[in-house]
Amino acid sequence: MKLHPLWQEYPTLQGELSETLALMEKTVKLKNKPVEKAVLDMIHAGGKLLRPAYQLLFSRFGPEQDRQKAIALAASIEMLHTATLIHDDIVDQADTRRNLPTVAARFGNDVAVYAGDYLFVCCFKLLADYAGSLRSLQLNSRSMEKILNGELGQMDRRYDLNMSVSDYLDNISGKTAELFALSCTAGALESGNSEKFAKQCGEIGLNIGIAFQIIDDILDYSQPESQIGKPVLEDVRQGVYSLPLLLAMEKDHAAFVPLLSKQDQMTEADTQAVYQLVQTKGGVTQAQKQAQRYTEKALKAIRKLPDDEQNTRELLWRLTKQILDRQN
Amino acid sequence: MKLHPLWQEYPTLQGELSETLALMEKTVKLKNKPVEKAVLDMIHAGGKLLRPAYQLLFSRFGPEQDRQKAIALAASIEMLHTATLIHDDIVDQADTRRNLPTVAARFGNDVAVYAGDYLFVCCFKLLADYAGSLRSLQLNSRSMEKILNGELGQMDRRYDLNMSVSDYLDNISGKTAELFALSCTAGALESGNSEKFAKQCGEIGLNIGIAFQIIDDILDYSQPESQIGKPVLEDVRQGVYSLPLLLAMEKDHAAFVPLLSKQDQMTEADTQAVYQLVQTKGGVTQAQKQAQRYTEKALKAIRKLPDDEQNTRELLWRLTKQILDRQN
Repeated sequence: MKLHPLWQEYPTLQGELSETLALMEKTVKLKNKPVEKAVLDMIHAGGKLLRPAYQLLFSRFGPEQDRQKAIALAASIEMLHTATLIHDDIVDQADTRRNLPTVAARFGNDVAVYAGDYLFVCCFKLLADYAGSLRSLQLNSRSMEKILNGELGQMDRRYDLNMSVSDYLDNISGKTAELFALSCTAGALESGNSEKFAKQCGEIGLNIGIAFQIIDDILDYSQPESQIGKPVLEDVRQGVYSLPLLLAMEKDHAAFVPLLSKQDQMTEADTQAVYQLVQTKGGVTQAQKQAQRYTEKALKAIRKLPDDEQNTRELLWRLTKQILDRQN
Repeated sequence: MKLHPLWQEYPTLQGELSETLALMEKTVKLKNKPVEKAVLDMIHAGGKLLRPAYQLLFSRFGPEQDRQKAIALAASIEMLHTATLIHDDIVDQADTRRNLPTVAARFGNDVAVYAGDYLFVCCFKLLADYAGSLRSLQLNSRSMEKILNGELGQMDRRYDLNMSVSDYLDNISGKTAELFALSCTAGALESGNSEKFAKQCGEIGLNIGIAFQIIDDILDYSQPESQIGKPVLEDVRQGVYSLPLLLAMEKDHAAFVPLLSKQDQMTEADTQAVYQLVQTKGGVTQAQKQAQRYTEKALKAIRKLPDDEQNTRELLWRLTKQILDRQN
C-alpha cells in the first residue's frame, strides 16, 4: 500500500491520505476472494487520490474538526471514483488502466460489474456510518446522477461529427469535473461551513476538474504511447472526440471527415493522420489555452479563500498549480 | 403503466403501489433518451412489485403514518431491485426477462452497466430525500453488500459439483431473500417501530424470500418452457445449480457427474436428461418440502404480528400464502 510520490511534498496531507487508503482497504470485505483481490488491486493501482486530497483540504476550513470523519468521507469519494473507473473500463472495453490490466480484462465483465457495484456500496456504507446528515447522501446521489449523465452523454455522441465544444464541456463537467466539485463541496459542508461557502468551494472543484480532463485529453495528442497508460487515440477509434480534435475540426471540418467516418474501421495510419492534423490545425495549442483559462479561474478563486493556521489556502494553490501543469 | 393483476384482490394496497410506480417513473430523468427509455421499459415490464408491497404493508404497523414517505421508500427498494436485475442480466448473458429482451440484449452491455448504475443512484436519491435518518442508508448499504456477496458466492460456485444445499441457502439468502428482509425491516423501522420489532419483520421477509427463490428454482424443473420467461435449465448450462438439482444429487451424485461436467458444452439432450433425473431422484418433491418449511415459518410469524384496524396482518398472510403457492 504505497502512496503516490506526489504527496511527499505535502507532509501534512500525506498522513491523512495514508489513513484514507487504509480505511478503503479495511472497508472491502468479500467472501469471494478473487473479486476481493481485484477490488483491492484496483485500489492499490497507484491512483493519485486527488479527490480525497481536495476533500481533506477543504474540510480544514470548517469549525468542526473531526478528522476521523473527514478521512472516512474522503475514502468514500475515492471508492465512488474507483467504482466508476471499473464500470467505465467495461463500457470502453479497455484492456489497461494505469499500465495494469483492467478488472474487466483480468476477470471478465461479469466480475467487473459486481466489483464496481460493490465499491458503490462501500461508498454509501462509509457515508451512512460517518456523514453528519442525509445532506451528504443528497450531494452524493445528485453528483452520481450528473456523472452518469456525462458518461451517457459521451456515449450518445459517439461518432457524431457535429459534436460541439459545448457538448464536450457538458460531458466532462459531468463525467470528471462533478466528482472534483463534490469533493470540495462535501469537504467544506461536512466540517460545518455554510451552504454558500460550500457552493463556492464546489465551483473551484468544477473548474479544477474541467481543466484536469482537458489536460488529460491533450496528453493523448502530445505524448508518445510509451509514456501514458491508456493507448493513444484509442478514444478516436471508439468515436469519443475530445477537445483538441473538436477545436481542430472547427478550423477544418472537411479534412477530418474522410478519416473519422471510418469509425471503428480506422487503421493505425488513419489515427496517425488524425494525430498530425490535430497538431497542424492548432487543436492542441487551442485546447491548452482553454485548460489554462479554467486553471486560472480555479487559482483565482483559491486566492480568495480565507486564511488559516495550517496554510490550507497556500497548499490548495500549490497542489492545483502542480497537477494542472502536467502539460509542461 | 399497468399494475400486475395480482393487486386487484388487494384494493387498499393497489392505489399506493400505483403511486409507487408513478414515483419511480418520475424519478428517472436522463438526457440520453434511448437509455431513459430502456430504464423506463424495465420499470414497466410488469414486475409484481412484491418488495414495495411488503414494505408498504409493514410500514402500516408503526405509529408514524406518513404515506408519502412510505411510498417513496417503497419506490427506492424497487429501483434497487431493478438495478440488480439489469446487472444480473449482463452477468448471466441473459437475452430475455419476463418474456422481453433484456436491457443488455437490446442496447448492449455498455448501456446496461450505466442503466443499472443509474437505478442505484435513483434508489439513493429517494432515500436521501425521504428517509428519516441515516439508519435507512445503513440498512440499505448493508443489504446491498449481502446481495452482492450472494451473487458473487453463486458466481464462485459455478460448475462446482461439490456445492452443498447449505451453500445454496447462503447464496439465495443474499441474492434474493435479503431484499425481502430489507423491505420488511425498513417498512417497520421507518414508520417508527422499535429496532426489535423491525428485526422480527426482517426475519419474516427473509423466510418469504428464501421460499420465493426456492419456488422460482422449482419452476425451472416443472413447467414447459413456453410458460416461463427465462429459458428452462439455462442456469444448469451456466453452472448455476439450484435446490432441486442439489437435492437430487445428494441422492445419486454419480448419475449427474458425466452430464454436468460437460459444463457449457451440454447439449439440449443433456439438459433434458438432467431435467428427467432431477424428477426421478425426487429433487423437485424434496425442494417443495423445503419451500413449504420456509413458507410455514413465515406464515406462523405473520400470525403473531399485532392486529390493526386495516387488517394488515390478514393481508400479509393472504399475500404471502398466494405468492408462495405458485407451484400448485
